[in-house]
Amino acid sequence: MGELLAVLFRTSVGSDLFDDRARLQGMLDFEAALTRAEARAGLFPAAAAEAIARRCRTELFDMSDLAELTAQAGNPAIPTIAALTRLVSADDPAAARYVHWGATSQDAIDTGFILQIRRFLELVQADLERLSAGLAKVAEKHRTTLLVGRTWLQQAAPTSLGFKAAGYLDATERHVERLDEMRSRALVLQFGGAVGTLSALGPRALEVAQALADELHLPLPEISWHSHRDRIGELSAFLGLLLGTLGKIARDLSLLMQTEVAEAFEPAGEARGGSSAMPQKRNPVAAAAVLAAAARGPGLVATVLSAMVRRSTSGAWAAGTRNGKPFRSSAS
Amino acid sequence: MGELLAVLFRTSVGSDLFDDRARLQGMLDFEAALTRAEARAGLFPAAAAEAIARRCRTELFDMSDLAELTAQAGNPAIPTIAALTRLVSADDPAAARYVHWGATSQDAIDTGFILQIRRFLELVQADLERLSAGLAKVAEKHRTTLLVGRTWLQQAAPTSLGFKAAGYLDATERHVERLDEMRSRALVLQFGGAVGTLSALGPRALEVAQALADELHLPLPEISWHSHRDRIGELSAFLGLLLGTLGKIARDLSLLMQTEVAEAFEPAGEARGGSSAMPQKRNPVAAAAVLAAAARGPGLVATVLSAMVRRSTSGAWAAGTRNGKPFRSSAS
Amino acid sequence: MGELLAVLFRTSVGSDLFDDRARLQGMLDFEAALTRAEARAGLFPAAAAEAIARRCRTELFDMSDLAELTAQAGNPAIPTIAALTRLVSADDPAAARYVHWGATSQDAIDTGFILQIRRFLELVQADLERLSAGLAKVAEKHRTTLLVGRTWLQQAAPTSLGFKAAGYLDATERHVERLDEMRSRALVLQFGGAVGTLSALGPRALEVAQALADELHLPLPEISWHSHRDRIGELSAFLGLLLGTLGKIARDLSLLMQTEVAEAFEPAGEARGGSSAMPQKRNPVAAAAVLAAAARGPGLVATVLSAMVRRSTSGAWAAGTRNGKPFRSSAS
Amino acid sequence: MGELLAVLFRTSVGSDLFDDRARLQGMLDFEAALTRAEARAGLFPAAAAEAIARRCRTELFDMSDLAELTAQAGNPAIPTIAALTRLVSADDPAAARYVHWGATSQDAIDTGFILQIRRFLELVQADLERLSAGLAKVAEKHRTTLLVGRTWLQQAAPTSLGFKAAGYLDATERHVERLDEMRSRALVLQFGGAVGTLSALGPRALEVAQALADELHLPLPEISWHSHRDRIGELSAFLGLLLGTLGKIARDLSLLMQTEVAEAFEPAGEARGGSSAMPQKRNPVAAAAVLAAAARGPGLVATVLSAMVRRSTSGAWAAGTRNGKPFRSSAS
Repeated sequence: MGELLAVLFRTSVGSDLFDDRARLQGMLDFEAALTRAEARAGLFPAAAAEAIARRCRTELFDMSDLAELTAQAGNPAIPTIAALTRLVSADDPAAARYVHWGATSQDAIDTGFILQIRRFLELVQADLERLSAGLAKVAEKHRTTLLVGRTWLQQAAPTSLGFKAAGYLDATERHVERLDEMRSRALVLQFGGAVGTLSALGPRALEVAQALADELHLPLPEISWHSHRDRIGELSAFLGLLLGTLGKIARDLSLLMQTEVAEAFEPAGEARGGSSAMPQKRNPVAAAAVLAAAARGPGLVATVLSAMVRRSTSGAWAAGTRNGKPFRSSAS
Repeated sequence: MGELLAVLFRTSVGSDLFDDRARLQGMLDFEAALTRAEARAGLFPAAAAEAIARRCRTELFDMSDLAELTAQAGNPAIPTIAALTRLVSADDPAAARYVHWGATSQDAIDTGFILQIRRFLELVQADLERLSAGLAKVAEKHRTTLLVGRTWLQQAAPTSLGFKAAGYLDATERHVERLDEMRSRALVLQFGGAVGTLSALGPRALEVAQALADELHLPLPEISWHSHRDRIGELSAFLGLLLGTLGKIARDLSLLMQTEVAEAFEPAGEARGGSSAMPQKRNPVAAAAVLAAAARGPGLVATVLSAMVRRSTSGAWAAGTRNGKPFRSSAS
Repeated sequence: MGELLAVLFRTSVGSDLFDDRARLQGMLDFEAALTRAEARAGLFPAAAAEAIARRCRTELFDMSDLAELTAQAGNPAIPTIAALTRLVSADDPAAARYVHWGATSQDAIDTGFILQIRRFLELVQADLERLSAGLAKVAEKHRTTLLVGRTWLQQAAPTSLGFKAAGYLDATERHVERLDEMRSRALVLQFGGAVGTLSALGPRALEVAQALADELHLPLPEISWHSHRDRIGELSAFLGLLLGTLGKIARDLSLLMQTEVAEAFEPAGEARGGSSAMPQKRNPVAAAAVLAAAARGPGLVATVLSAMVRRSTSGAWAAGTRNGKPFRSSAS
Repeated sequence: MGELLAVLFRTSVGSDLFDDRARLQGMLDFEAALTRAEARAGLFPAAAAEAIARRCRTELFDMSDLAELTAQAGNPAIPTIAALTRLVSADDPAAARYVHWGATSQDAIDTGFILQIRRFLELVQADLERLSAGLAKVAEKHRTTLLVGRTWLQQAAPTSLGFKAAGYLDATERHVERLDEMRSRALVLQFGGAVGTLSALGPRALEVAQALADELHLPLPEISWHSHRDRIGELSAFLGLLLGTLGKIARDLSLLMQTEVAEAFEPAGEARGGSSAMPQKRNPVAAAAVLAAAARGPGLVATVLSAMVRRSTSGAWAAGTRNGKPFRSSAS
């Protein structure tokens, strides 16, 4: 079962996708695209847009300054835009007034987050495909490899390793389907201005919105959605469901690896699965890592669902912080 | 805004859909269809099947007996099948041995539950369509009815009642889309026998399975899924998301109904929204009912997601009971 | 290990403690005590109080009427008080005006709930003591009965059954301690009138409050607490913690009962732990029941904790209903 | 109400208390104390203990190496102990064999975490006392400052600002009481060796345990508790309850700060509560920060409660990682 496990437990989902810099870059990508879209719509000269877009690079920003100012401002977009404006002013004071023109904090925060999510979901999809392929191989190869079927942890009747894998595969393919459907709802532009109506942009509003959507290769939704968090809720529910299936597989594995059962094993390796007190042990380390992640899923999904209702009161903070610390990525 | 509210808060989702009798009837519907399918596949005479199917009516069963025996058996199917067998035996001892032939408890429990869910989702869909239609009307009619737009509960910039309703409508239509997609995954037959392999039915297994699916007008899935709870998880996540949106609308309403704001109202009525201490008050009763339901959503979704992993240990109970009480419907 | 299990899994915690009738009786007990306390304080004649108190019996009330009216009123106290007033009026119109005098719905709802909780905690305490005593016996008797110690589900080093039981005992005794401390905070009167200030009772307010507390044998708290739900939150957190420990013990048992491990067993019995497909199986039914209860704990605790914040908006409903159905007991 | 808010929303609870270095230092503090305790008990020379203790300083360790090895080992203690052993060997090979003598990973992880918690709870206590003092002042000073009392967000009857503050104060004082009681259960040594029995230390085990407890100024508990997580569960439940109360106060404030209500305000300041689209706005930034933290509480408490049951399967990882990332502090 080695190939399956290698597929299942690799650590491809890079955690720097959601670190502070990535979050900042997401907002700056929004600002750069916004300014170009507005210039294309003729709101101001293209040169001003380029003067702004040129500064939309995280390495020009002081992260610890931003973190501190975010706590005061109540959201990460306000100090980011202020810092960007200062950077632009230094060289091109005339361009500086066009920074973030007609947009609101939540536009930058949400669209920036969606851009992060887009990259993340590509990795998830690649992982799911690899997992599917691995499970399909096991299902095929071990079609008749007999295994004890158990219910209530009691031996019940014979089954096969291939049949077990086919069950995992079936669930995995449903997740692929869900990901596909969910993506089309989740990956859209957020752009509404102060209260969602884009009124600051006057009659050019929809033209700018479409140009911005084109710049970012994100569909333009029917209407501003920043106070309706079902897109974010669905994303987190999808991840919760996926963790449920992965956790179930990991649980099965840790049970099959029991000393008394010994029907399947994780691949062993140096410095892997050892014990500080009993060097001879072989622990289900990868399964435990998956189970630890799966254990956190339900509570996090509940938090995001709760935030759907509270939205009106708590403003951008609920989405923009973690543990009260500014500039930390969050599931909502 | 009266028409909107009347739509939003009606109490169509009848709670008897998930009471003990409905749950029992779900399992009996499975047993009746199973026996007919098996007779059609030639496993035993059609007369025996009819002798069984005739007794698959809740009014023939003693609910309190079943409740007590469920606690001992560990799931509600075991005592149900035993009672059904006794009922059949009384008139037709020969037919009695064909009751539940080749199936396992979880087949009856899960498929019965899916049949309940099918009826429930029809009501949900009808409600969503009514809500959509109502919101579309408000969005159209109040397209230019000015309203204060607020963020952080502070007055921000003007918006319109129609724009607000359009935002609700947009979210509601996404839920309609999700319901549609989810339904095709959730509403399928569960039929696997002891460990999911249908081995007790030998070479006729798939033929019986297809006949059973036809009887119940439920698609036959690729493989038995009783240990993979993502279908149930997705269903509960969908309901959690929907409650999130409804809760958000209700929260907005209760804020708009504040004495100092007074921009929207629930329809009043006799015995509605009064106070035991202050008869003059007008409370947002319907909004509070929706908020109370929405407050319970996230925790329930988390519970169902958690159960996806634990499945292997806790057997049918985790799905089949509520608060340790047998024969109570449950979200998982 | 039979005695331990018999202790652990008995079903003493009667579910009718929290059914609709018990909930109604809790509120009526409050109303009876209130009217007597007010008569003692000289607010009206003792005969009027007795005319009211005499009708504070659930069998005089129509439960389905109350359920329907609760949905309209937004809380169960309003129709209860209206029905009580009608009952009193029938015989003694003069007394009827003193029903619920100076109190508010939340006073009846919360104090009635506290009275239910008081009875419930007595059962919990008795169960905990029985569990402690059983575990102490096992710890003593099996002090040197060797058992495999496992970590990560892998055999690690020897331990003893007595040592395992001593660990369970130690945790159980901490719960006894917590129960004791929590009870003194949770079991107090709620009595505040319209907005908590008892202003409707004028200068006699505190005298009435003390007399009411005496009637109900409940301490009088420093101040009205109905909008501060930490007492209810602590109660539910305690139950969540207790379920965590019971679930851990049940999990251990179900693992020890595995066919391949077979180190401990639940007591078997007729109709107990069987399988509808495989009559020879012996399932960990009691452990599964405990695990099913434990699986619901965390989500319910999260719901109650969430409700602490939302309180101001959602009024009595959040505490007083379950699934939007009036007159169903709830954990908050 | 300025003084109250200044008290309520200061950010004293430093987040570096739970960062990677603090976590490592917690484990190293355990190792240093262990080796000294064992030398005092005569298990090996004091010079060897000092050679070890001298290296128990985070600045000698490579954090990114440890993070990577933790993922492979399945817990952070294994690579920490290996690295410590290498450091000691470099100068004093004879002493190196006494590193972590007779202990297990979980001893270092749990006791290290308890040491972090001890510092954290001192800050919480100081904050609670400050909050209490501030609320007491407001309660006293504004005893008769009239305020509208509201229920269901509707104006109901008069109350006073002092009365409101007294209600907050009452809840805060219950939290102080809970903290005090909880601390005596939570802040204890964890020391059990491989399976909790300390068998590797033979007859000197209890003597070493007492010496270790003395070194760390932590009480010695009745028995090893690493598989009974109620102490950690209670700690997180306490924090969840406290967040519930703080969230309730913050919610009240954000409602009182509404443009239309304007009865209370957060202290304003430069760069504080502004808006990127509407510079004139004054947002309830501090209240939103508290609400954002409170929104995360219930889900996190649920996760920790869930982990109480799963413990046996998932090993140290569930407690030792966050989001699958090694060396990140976690609430469990």
